[in-house]
Amino acid sequence: MTKNPEIDNHLKIQTGEDYINSLRNRDLLIYLMGEKIVDPVEHPMIRPSINAVAETYDLAIREPELASVISPFTGERISRFLHIVHSAADMVLQNKMQRKLGQNTGTCFQRCVGMDAFNSLYSVTFEIDEAHQTSYHVKLKEFLTKMHTHNYVVGGAMTDVKGDRSLAPHQQEDPDLFVRITKRTDEGVYISGAKAHQTGCINSHWMIVMPTMRLGENDKDYAIVGAVPVDAKGITYIYGRQSCDTRSMEGGEIDTGNNTYGGQEAMVIFEDTFIPHDHIFMDGEYDFASLLVERFTTYHRRSYVCKSGVGDVLIGAAAAIVEMNGVEKASHIKDKLVQMTHLNETIYATGIASSYQGHQTKSGCYLCDDMLANVCKHHVTKMPYEIARLAQDLGGGLVATMPSEKDLKHPEIGHLIDKYLKGKSSYTTEERMRVLRLIENMTLGRNAVGYLTESMHGAGSPQAQRIQIGRAMQLEYKKRLAKVLAGIENAGDTVNELSGYFERVFKI
Amino acid sequence: MTKNPEIDNHLKIQTGEDYINSLRNRDLLIYLMGEKIVDPVEHPMIRPSINAVAETYDLAIREPELASVISPFTGERISRFLHIVHSAADMVLQNKMQRKLGQNTGTCFQRCVGMDAFNSLYSVTFEIDEAHQTSYHVKLKEFLTKMHTHNYVVGGAMTDVKGDRSLAPHQQEDPDLFVRITKRTDEGVYISGAKAHQTGCINSHWMIVMPTMRLGENDKDYAIVGAVPVDAKGITYIYGRQSCDTRSMEGGEIDTGNNTYGGQEAMVIFEDTFIPHDHIFMDGEYDFASLLVERFTTYHRRSYVCKSGVGDVLIGAAAAIVEMNGVEKASHIKDKLVQMTHLNETIYATGIASSYQGHQTKSGCYLCDDMLANVCKHHVTKMPYEIARLAQDLGGGLVATMPSEKDLKHPEIGHLIDKYLKGKSSYTTEERMRVLRLIENMTLGRNAVGYLTESMHGAGSPQAQRIQIGRAMQLEYKKRLAKVLAGIENAGDTVNELSGYFERVFKI
Amino acid sequence: MTKNPEIDNHLKIQTGEDYINSLRNRDLLIYLMGEKIVDPVEHPMIRPSINAVAETYDLAIREPELASVISPFTGERISRFLHIVHSAADMVLQNKMQRKLGQNTGTCFQRCVGMDAFNSLYSVTFEIDEAHQTSYHVKLKEFLTKMHTHNYVVGGAMTDVKGDRSLAPHQQEDPDLFVRITKRTDEGVYISGAKAHQTGCINSHWMIVMPTMRLGENDKDYAIVGAVPVDAKGITYIYGRQSCDTRSMEGGEIDTGNNTYGGQEAMVIFEDTFIPHDHIFMDGEYDFASLLVERFTTYHRRSYVCKSGVGDVLIGAAAAIVEMNGVEKASHIKDKLVQMTHLNETIYATGIASSYQGHQTKSGCYLCDDMLANVCKHHVTKMPYEIARLAQDLGGGLVATMPSEKDLKHPEIGHLIDKYLKGKSSYTTEERMRVLRLIENMTLGRNAVGYLTESMHGAGSPQAQRIQIGRAMQLEYKKRLAKVLAGIENAGDTVNELSGYFERVFKI
Amino acid sequence: MTKNPEIDNHLKIQTGEDYINSLRNRDLLIYLMGEKIVDPVEHPMIRPSINAVAETYDLAIREPELASVISPFTGERISRFLHIVHSAADMVLQNKMQRKLGQNTGTCFQRCVGMDAFNSLYSVTFEIDEAHQTSYHVKLKEFLTKMHTHNYVVGGAMTDVKGDRSLAPHQQEDPDLFVRITKRTDEGVYISGAKAHQTGCINSHWMIVMPTMRLGENDKDYAIVGAVPVDAKGITYIYGRQSCDTRSMEGGEIDTGNNTYGGQEAMVIFEDTFIPHDHIFMDGEYDFASLLVERFTTYHRRSYVCKSGVGDVLIGAAAAIVEMNGVEKASHIKDKLVQMTHLNETIYATGIASSYQGHQTKSGCYLCDDMLANVCKHHVTKMPYEIARLAQDLGGGLVATMPSEKDLKHPEIGHLIDKYLKGKSSYTTEERMRVLRLIENMTLGRNAVGYLTESMHGAGSPQAQRIQIGRAMQLEYKKRLAKVLAGIENAGDTVNELSGYFERVFKI
Repeated sequence: MTKNPEIDNHLKIQTGEDYINSLRNRDLLIYLMGEKIVDPVEHPMIRPSINAVAETYDLAIREPELASVISPFTGERISRFLHIVHSAADMVLQNKMQRKLGQNTGTCFQRCVGMDAFNSLYSVTFEIDEAHQTSYHVKLKEFLTKMHTHNYVVGGAMTDVKGDRSLAPHQQEDPDLFVRITKRTDEGVYISGAKAHQTGCINSHWMIVMPTMRLGENDKDYAIVGAVPVDAKGITYIYGRQSCDTRSMEGGEIDTGNNTYGGQEAMVIFEDTFIPHDHIFMDGEYDFASLLVERFTTYHRRSYVCKSGVGDVLIGAAAAIVEMNGVEKASHIKDKLVQMTHLNETIYATGIASSYQGHQTKSGCYLCDDMLANVCKHHVTKMPYEIARLAQDLGGGLVATMPSEKDLKHPEIGHLIDKYLKGKSSYTTEERMRVLRLIENMTLGRNAVGYLTESMHGAGSPQAQRIQIGRAMQLEYKKRLAKVLAGIENAGDTVNELSGYFERVFKI
Repeated sequence: MTKNPEIDNHLKIQTGEDYINSLRNRDLLIYLMGEKIVDPVEHPMIRPSINAVAETYDLAIREPELASVISPFTGERISRFLHIVHSAADMVLQNKMQRKLGQNTGTCFQRCVGMDAFNSLYSVTFEIDEAHQTSYHVKLKEFLTKMHTHNYVVGGAMTDVKGDRSLAPHQQEDPDLFVRITKRTDEGVYISGAKAHQTGCINSHWMIVMPTMRLGENDKDYAIVGAVPVDAKGITYIYGRQSCDTRSMEGGEIDTGNNTYGGQEAMVIFEDTFIPHDHIFMDGEYDFASLLVERFTTYHRRSYVCKSGVGDVLIGAAAAIVEMNGVEKASHIKDKLVQMTHLNETIYATGIASSYQGHQTKSGCYLCDDMLANVCKHHVTKMPYEIARLAQDLGGGLVATMPSEKDLKHPEIGHLIDKYLKGKSSYTTEERMRVLRLIENMTLGRNAVGYLTESMHGAGSPQAQRIQIGRAMQLEYKKRLAKVLAGIENAGDTVNELSGYFERVFKI
Repeated sequence: MTKNPEIDNHLKIQTGEDYINSLRNRDLLIYLMGEKIVDPVEHPMIRPSINAVAETYDLAIREPELASVISPFTGERISRFLHIVHSAADMVLQNKMQRKLGQNTGTCFQRCVGMDAFNSLYSVTFEIDEAHQTSYHVKLKEFLTKMHTHNYVVGGAMTDVKGDRSLAPHQQEDPDLFVRITKRTDEGVYISGAKAHQTGCINSHWMIVMPTMRLGENDKDYAIVGAVPVDAKGITYIYGRQSCDTRSMEGGEIDTGNNTYGGQEAMVIFEDTFIPHDHIFMDGEYDFASLLVERFTTYHRRSYVCKSGVGDVLIGAAAAIVEMNGVEKASHIKDKLVQMTHLNETIYATGIASSYQGHQTKSGCYLCDDMLANVCKHHVTKMPYEIARLAQDLGGGLVATMPSEKDLKHPEIGHLIDKYLKGKSSYTTEERMRVLRLIENMTLGRNAVGYLTESMHGAGSPQAQRIQIGRAMQLEYKKRLAKVLAGIENAGDTVNELSGYFERVFKI
Repeated sequence: MTKNPEIDNHLKIQTGEDYINSLRNRDLLIYLMGEKIVDPVEHPMIRPSINAVAETYDLAIREPELASVISPFTGERISRFLHIVHSAADMVLQNKMQRKLGQNTGTCFQRCVGMDAFNSLYSVTFEIDEAHQTSYHVKLKEFLTKMHTHNYVVGGAMTDVKGDRSLAPHQQEDPDLFVRITKRTDEGVYISGAKAHQTGCINSHWMIVMPTMRLGENDKDYAIVGAVPVDAKGITYIYGRQSCDTRSMEGGEIDTGNNTYGGQEAMVIFEDTFIPHDHIFMDGEYDFASLLVERFTTYHRRSYVCKSGVGDVLIGAAAAIVEMNGVEKASHIKDKLVQMTHLNETIYATGIASSYQGHQTKSGCYLCDDMLANVCKHHVTKMPYEIARLAQDLGGGLVATMPSEKDLKHPEIGHLIDKYLKGKSSYTTEERMRVLRLIENMTLGRNAVGYLTESMHGAGSPQAQRIQIGRAMQLEYKKRLAKVLAGIENAGDTVNELSGYFERVFKI
C-alpha cells in the first residue's frame, strides 16, 4: 500500500516522531516553485506543515482523553481524528481537540477534512447500501479498520478545479475539470482530474477522493468516492505558494514569525490513478453526491472551531505586545482585547452548540446541527479578519515596517536596532520583535493563509453558508408564529408541525 | 401569605386561567399614569402582560416535557420556571422553553428573573452557610417547597435606583437609594427603598429582594435577601410607560400590533416592608453580595436566549410582509431574511453553549458558563436592533406611516384604504395592515421595549458584559501560547496550568 | 388658488406665525384616526408638525444668509427651500440649512421633497422642451414665480401605492394604483390615484404630483407632472399613525419627549382632481419619467444630511443624560459619544461632498453628484439606527420603563418619583425625566418615525441606493486599472477614457 | 547640498526618469536584510518604491492641471506635492491627485508626508514668529523656493521610536528615544535619535525632521524642526521588511502581484547629524510642538483619500476575477462589489469634505477641517480591511493556495497548471493567475502593508482619531440643543454661540 519501509515496519504510528519518519522515503512527485522535491520532510518550506500534523500525535500522548479514543474496530488507542462519532459528546470533543491544536500550533493542522469525510461517508454509504443494495458501508469499515491499525493520517480530496462554473461536470469542454472515472476494469477504476487547494495532502498517508457537488444522471462517471494511498501512481502534487513562504529558506527563525508550524495546501493532479474495488465507496450513485457534500460540509463548517484556538494565540500575541509597549492599562487597549475575545468565543460557542445539538443518523453515526454549523462557519468568514485587524491595531506600525532579524544580528547595526526598538525594560528587543513577527505571520504572512483566507473559503465560501441557512430557516413556521400574534391565524398546538431545524431545537 | 381567597382555595395553580384568577382581588397599591388601579387583571394596558405569564402555565400543560418538571420537593409536576437545575441538560431545557415562549408571545414573559434568582441563591446560601454557619439554605428550600406546592410565580427584585453612581450605598446622601434594612425586630426585618424597572412584579405572587452590586463592610444593612409576597404591606407599584402603551385603551385590536401579549416593568417602592426570619436568605453577609450578583447575571445573561424566540416572530413577520408585497423572490430580500436568521441563531447558539458548558456548584445546583453567557448577552445588546432594522427595511415605509384601524373600518373612507393599501391578491388589506402593525409593535411600539431596550439593559448593560468578559478572558494563558510559538518561551504540557474559562473548555 | 382669505390678504408669508395663520380656515378633507379634522392647526397631534415647518420661516429671519435667498424671479428675499440652485455652493447651503433645522427641531421639517422636486423639474422640463418642443420649462418658471411671490410651502407627491410590484402601472388590475390622468379637457387634466406616506402634505400650500418610476409607452397616462393647491377639490388626506402619537392628546408636555416639533406623513387620495394647463409640467412624455425620478432621488438622497442635525440632538441628549447619571467620565461612555459623532459626521460629510461635487445641467441648474448622494443616503439607512441604539445604551433602562409625568405630578406619589428617580444633584428629577423622554421620543416614539423609519425608506429604500451605486461604479474603468498593474494590459493616458463618476472625480 | 552630480547638473527634475537618475550615485548608508545597499535604484526590492514616486512626476506631465502648479516662488511649473495650499480648492485638488496616483500605482507613492509637513509648518512658523519674534517663516519660504527650483522630493520625519510610552522625552532612560539636539554651534545644531517607519525617506532628496508630540518646558531640546538632505552625514537607513518582499528577488514578474510599484518604509537613525541655521524652522519653542503635530495630522488624516484610489484597483481586480471565474452575474457577487464601492467612496467623500470645508490660517495657507479629517482617517482604519476581506471572498481560495509562476512556466508541469487553472475561455490561465496574485499582493502581500497596516497606523492609530473627534465634538453645544427641545432650557438664537467645528459647519 505504501512503499515506505519505515511505516511498514512500525505497524502503528504512536508519536509525532513516528509520524515524521513515516513520511520519509516515499516516492511522491511534488513540485514546489518549479522544483521537484525529493525529501519533503527536510524541506524548510514544507516541514512546518508536517510539524503541525505531528503535534496531533504528540497531543494524543500528552492528553489521551482529549485527542485519542479506543478504536471500536481494533480495541486500541488511536487518534481522535480517525474516530467515527457515536454521540454528541464525541462531536464536542472533536471541537475541544481542535481548539487545543489551534492553540498549540497557531495554524491549520490539516486533519479535519479527512475526519469529517469518513464520518460523512459512514452514514452516506449506509444509506446508499439501503437504497441500492450495495456494500460500500462494510468496505468502508474495513478500510477504517486498516487506518486504525496503523493510526494513519487520512486526507479528504473534494474541491475540483471546476472550470466554467455555469456548467455541470459532463458539460465542460474539458471533461477532466472534475475528477472522473476514465476507465473501469475487473479490479477497479482509473481516475483523472485535479483537486485544488488540498489541505495537508502531502502530509497524509491516504486520501479519500469525493465529488464536490450535486450531480445529475449524466455525471455518473463523476460520482466516484474512493481511497488512494498518497503515493499512488499517477499523482502529481503542486505545492501552493503562501504569503512569505520563502522566509523559511532564509536561515533565520525570527522573521518567519512562527518558525515551527505552518499549513499546507497543494493542487493534486490525478492521471489515470487506480482505485481497487475494496477502496471504492461510491461508484455511479450520483443521486447521493449532494447528500455526501451536505453532510461533509455540515461537519466541516463546525470544525472551523479550530480557528478559535488560533485566535487565542493571536489574542495572546496582541496582549503580549501591548504589555511590551507599556500600554496595557489604557482602557481602549483593554477594550479591544475584550472585543477580540467576544468574537473569538462566538466562533467557539456556535460551533460547539452545533455539536451539542447533533442527532443520530441511521448508521448510528452522529451528525451535528446543520443550521448552527453554518452559523458558526459564516462567522468564521468574518470574525478572524476583524480579530486580525484589531491585532494589527494593537501591534502598531512595526508589524509591517520592522527591520529584519539579519539587521538585528548584524555586527555593525545590530546595536542600533536593539537600542531603538526597545520597549518596556522587562523584555528584550528580540522578544518584542518576535511577537511582532508572530502578529505579522498571522495577519499578513504564512499563517494568515490559514487564519484568514482559508477561514473564508474552506468548507465553502460565505455564500454557501447563506444558501444553507436559507434552506434551513423554516420561514413557513415563523410566518405562522407572526400570523397568530397578528391575529390573522388561530393559535393551536404548534408542536405537531415541528420539523427540520425547529424539530431539533425543541427536542427534549 | 396572600389575601386572595381564590388562590387560597385553589391550592395549586395549574392553568393559565387559574393563574389569572389568582391575581384577582389582591390588595395592591398600583399607580398607572397617575391613576390607582384596583383591578389590574381587567385593565387593558396591564392584561397583555398577564396573558404572557399565563402562557407559561398553558405551555406547561400542552408541552409538559418542555415547560414543567417533577418537583423534587413535592413530587408533583410544577412549572420549569420554579426548578433548581441539577444538570447541564436542565439548563438547556430552560433555554428551549424560553425560545418557545418567545415564539408564542412575541414579548417578555417575565418569569426568568425569579428562576435565575433562586437558582443563584440556592448555591450562594449553601456557601454562605458553609462560611458563616448560618442556615439560609434550608430556609430557602422550605420557601421553594411552598412555592412548588402552589406553583406560584416568583419574581426577583434586584436593580436599585442607585442615585449617584460614584458612591457606595452607605455613602449616598439619601440612604434609601438602595434598598436597606431600616429596623430589626425579633420577628424579622423591615426594609425601605426602591427597585427600578422590575419585570413582571405585579404579575407575581412573591418577589425575592436582592442587593444589586458588590457591597462593603459599611453596607451591611444593604446586604439583605428576602422573599416578600407581592401584596405585602408598604409596597407601592408605579407602572412604567411603554411606547404606544395607550393603544390598548383605544378599543381596537389591530393598531396594538400584538393585541394579546405584552411585557411589564414597574418601579417597586418599599416603605418599611416586613420580612419574617423564615423568608430571609441573607442578612448582613455583605461579602457574598457580589457572588450572588455574579451568579445571577451568569444565569440571566444566558436567559436572553428568549429573544431568539421573539426574533423568530419578527423574522416571520418580515417574511409575511414581503410575501404580501409580492417581493419575496428578490435576492436582496431573501438575503436579508438569511442575515436576520444568522444573527438570531447566534443568540440561541451562544446561549445554549453556555448552558451545555455548565458545571456543578458545591450545592449540587448547576451553573452555566460565565464567559459564554456574557458573550450571548452581549450579542443580545446589538443583534435584535439589527434584526429590527432589517424588519423595518423589509416592511417598507408603511410601518410608520399607515392610517389607523379606525380609518380602515370607517364607513366613508374605509373603502379607500382597502383599495389603496392592497398588496398581493391572496391577502386582504386588513391582513397586510395587521402584519405591518406587528412589525411596528416589535420595532417601535410596545414590544420593542422588551425586544430592544430590555435586551440592551436587562441583566446588565453592554459594558457590564465587557467587564465580565475581560475578567474571564485569561490573557496570561493566551500570552503564553503566543510566546511559545514566537520562540520566547518553551512549550511544555500546558494542561497543568488550566484554570478558569479554559478549564471548562478543556474539561472532558 | 386658495380659499383662505388670510393668506390672500397677506401676499407674502414672512414669519412662522404668518405661515401658521396661512393654514387656517382652509377647506381640507382630513381624516385622523377615523375622525374628520376641521382645524388641523389647533389639533394637538398635528400641530407639532406645523411648528416644524414654521421654524423654517423663523430661521430665515434669524439667519437670513443660511435659510433664505433673493429670488431671481421676484428680487425679494424668500425661503431657501424655494430656490433653484445655480452653483455647488447653493447646494452646500441647502445642506447646512438642513442640518441647522434638524438641530432646531429634532425631527423632519418636511420641506425638502418640494425643494428637490422643482429643482429636478427645472432641468428635466428644460430637456423635455428641447426634445419635444414643449413649453414646460417656462410654465414651471411662472409657477415658481408665483410661489416665490407668496413665499409658499410646496410639497412633492411622488410615491404611488404601487399594488403588485411586479407589474407596470398600466398592467395593474386596478388602474388607479398609480396616479393617472382619467380625463383630458381643453382646460387641463383630471387625475386619480393615491400617494402613500406624503411628508408634510397637509402643511403645504401646493403639491407637485410626479410619477414614481420608469414608465413605458403604454403608461402615457401615468406620465403626468403637475402642481395642485393642497385644498384642491377631490383630495382626501388620511393621516398616518406614528408611534406614541396620542401622547400629544394627554394634556402633558413631558411624556411627548419633544413637545414642540414632529413630522407628518399622510396618504393623499386624488379623485378626479383637476390640473389646469398652466400647472402641468409633463403630460405623456413617459420617456422622461425615469430621468425625473433619478434627478429627484439624487438631490433628495443627499438631502438626508438633515439627519445629522437630528443626530446632533440625540447625541446631545445622550451626553446630557450621562452627565445627569454622573457617569460622563467613564471611558466607555465617552467612547460611545465619539462613535455616535463619527457616524453622524459621516452622514454630513458624504452629503456635502455630493453637493460640492455637483455639476451644471443644460438648464443652468446644478445637480449634486449621484454616486456620493447614494453613498450618503445608504449610510442614513443604517447609522441613525446605530446612533439610536447607542443613545439607548447611554440612557439606561429608564428610557423604556419610566413612570408617566402624571405620576411625577401626582399629589400622593409624586414625591416618591422625585426621590427615587433623582440623579446628580445639580439637576432636578423632572429635568432628568425630560431628557429620558426625549431619547425615547427619538428612538422609539414619534420622532423615531422620522429619524429611523423615514431614514430607511425616504428617497428610496436601501436596495435602491445599492442599485444606483451599482450603476455608477464604473467597473470597466476599475478593471482596467487592475489589469494594467497586473501586467495584463498596457498603461497609457487613462484620462481620455474618463466618463461618468470618475469624470466628476477628476474634473479640475 | 547633495553630492549627486547628476542632480546638480539637471537643475530641475521634470520627468520620472530625471527623478530616478537624481537618486543615483548618492552616498547613503542603507541596510536591507543585513546587507549594505550601494545602489538602491537598481535593487529589485527597492526599485518598485522608486517607481511609485517617479509616477508622481510622470503624472504631472500627462495631467499638469491635476498634478502640478505654478510655483508662486519661482513662477515655474512644479509638482503639486510641493505646493502651499491657498484655497479649499487647492486642498481638494491634492485629494484628487492622491486618488489618481493610488489608481495608477496601487500602492503608497510616499510624497504626502512631506507635502503635509511643510503646509503645516507654513502656518505654524508664521504663528511662532508672531509669538516669539523669530524668523522661521521667511527661512521656510527660502527653503521652499530652493525645493521648487529643483522640483525635489521632500519627505517628513516625525514618528520617534518613543521607548516607554508613559514617559515624556526628557524622562526616558535613554535620551535618544526621541530625536533631540545634542550640540549647538554658531553654524547650527546637531541631532541624534531615530524615526521609525519613515515613508519614502530613501526616495526623497530632503527630509523635514519634526517632533512627534506635545512637549513640555523640559523637552526644549526635543523641540527641533529642520530640513536635512537625505544624504547628510550621520544618517543610517534600515529598510523595513514587508510581507512577501523577497518575491522581487525571484526573477519573475507574476508572483510579485504588482511588479512595478511598491511602498517604502525605513528606520532613520541620526547620529550627530548637522542642521545649519538656514534650515531650522523651530528650535526650542516647545509650546508650538503640539500645534504643529495637530495641524500636520489634520492635513495628513485627510490625505488618506489616496486609499480610495488604491481601493479602486482592488475593486477592479475583484471585478476582473469574478468575470474570469464566470460568476459576475450572481446577485451576491454584484452586491459585494457595490458594498466595496460604498465603503471606498465613503473614504473619498469624507476626505474631500474635509478639504472643501477648509479655512484660512493667519499665514494665508489653508487648513482642512479637523473633525472631518479625523472622520475620514478613522474610516480608513477599517474600511480597507473590509474591502480586502471582500476581495478575498470574491477571489476564491486560489488567492492563497496557487502554485508559483515557475510552476506555470515549467516545461514538465506547466501544461497541467494551464489546463487545470483555466477559467472563462476568453482569458488565459496566466491572466487569471496575474489577477489572483494582484489580489494576494494587496490583501496579504507587499502592498497590503500600505493598503492595510499603514492605513491603520499612518497619521495616527485609530485611538488618536477618536481622541481628536472627542475633542472637537462640542458636546456642550449639542446638550443645549437637546435641553431646548426637552423643555429644560429656552431656545434663542443659537448662532451667537457658534465656535469650533460648528462654526465651520455653519459658515456661509
